[in-house]
Amino acid sequence: MEIEVKFRIDFEETKRKLKSLGAKLVRVEEQEDLYFSLPSNELLRIRRIRNLGKSFLTYKLIKDPGRNEEFDEIEVEVSSFEKTREILKRLGFHEDVLIRKHRLVYRLGDVTFELSRVEGLGGFLDIEVISDSPEEAKRRIWALAEKLGLSKNDVEPRLYTELIKEKSH
Amino acid sequence: MEIEVKFRIDFEETKRKLKSLGAKLVRVEEQEDLYFSLPSNELLRIRRIRNLGKSFLTYKLIKDPGRNEEFDEIEVEVSSFEKTREILKRLGFHEDVLIRKHRLVYRLGDVTFELSRVEGLGGFLDIEVISDSPEEAKRRIWALAEKLGLSKNDVEPRLYTELIKEKSH
Repeated sequence: MEIEVKFRIDFEETKRKLKSLGAKLVRVEEQEDLYFSLPSNELLRIRRIRNLGKSFLTYKLIKDPGRNEEFDEIEVEVSSFEKTREILKRLGFHEDVLIRKHRLVYRLGDVTFELSRVEGLGGFLDIEVISDSPEEAKRRIWALAEKLGLSKNDVEPRLYTELIKEKSH
Repeated sequence: MEIEVKFRIDFEETKRKLKSLGAKLVRVEEQEDLYFSLPSNELLRIRRIRNLGKSFLTYKLIKDPGRNEEFDEIEVEVSSFEKTREILKRLGFHEDVLIRKHRLVYRLGDVTFELSRVEGLGGFLDIEVISDSPEEAKRRIWALAEKLGLSKNDVEPRLYTELIKEKSH
């Protein structure tokens, strides 16, 4: 299972703190995430990573709706963003929202830090661990979050899709 | 548009005739096609080509249902057969039939010949042209079919999915 906690942060400040923490920058991604409408505890997304020339089809089941920290995720790489989009439309799925992010991906051991500047929404840090034990994963995430000076007040429980839709209303 | 005519043939005899015709063998494929249930004029398939280690997700709209010679096809390569299968199941699609084929793919100009030994069904030849003019494409397909000694009596209008289901009843 994918366990992650999302924080609202200042992009440049967090970048410096991640470096101090010893996290290694492993990837820079210019992401375009196209979400399709599904029931509220499920997500269906095609992600295009423009600078890497790669696209991915991803299904997520949200295990803790509202809190949005625990996900069953299934992902495949696809050879074409546009053709995958066309297949999903032919199958009856409707496009919901498009989210653009500039993202730096860091690693420290088996913990992934996704530092993002999201178009129209600002800076976010997702701290992610793949684990079968959500409790243990969250303890590790929070130990690192505290080292970065983050607290419960900095948590953003809403999904990027929800934030974009709230903003446009 | 994909225009194709399917014939029931003898595999070894047709292989010799294709060689005499000057068609070039371009690929050998061990295919596993998993079809999902959709309305009858649509097809949704994941194809695993075992010997090449590749998988494809394909949607086809049948433009001439019953005759089954004209298709709008959209296809992407996917990095995992099993994960794509799992995503489709999570999205509510139901597995319909699995079809296994040993296929030789030949080319002659822009015409593709797919010579198949289909598990449980026997030998088939699909002659295929990509064209916006079905009439012109079919004239070219039939000119080649006649050179291979094939006639209207050898045409199999039914889809592989239909043939497999009829057989199992």
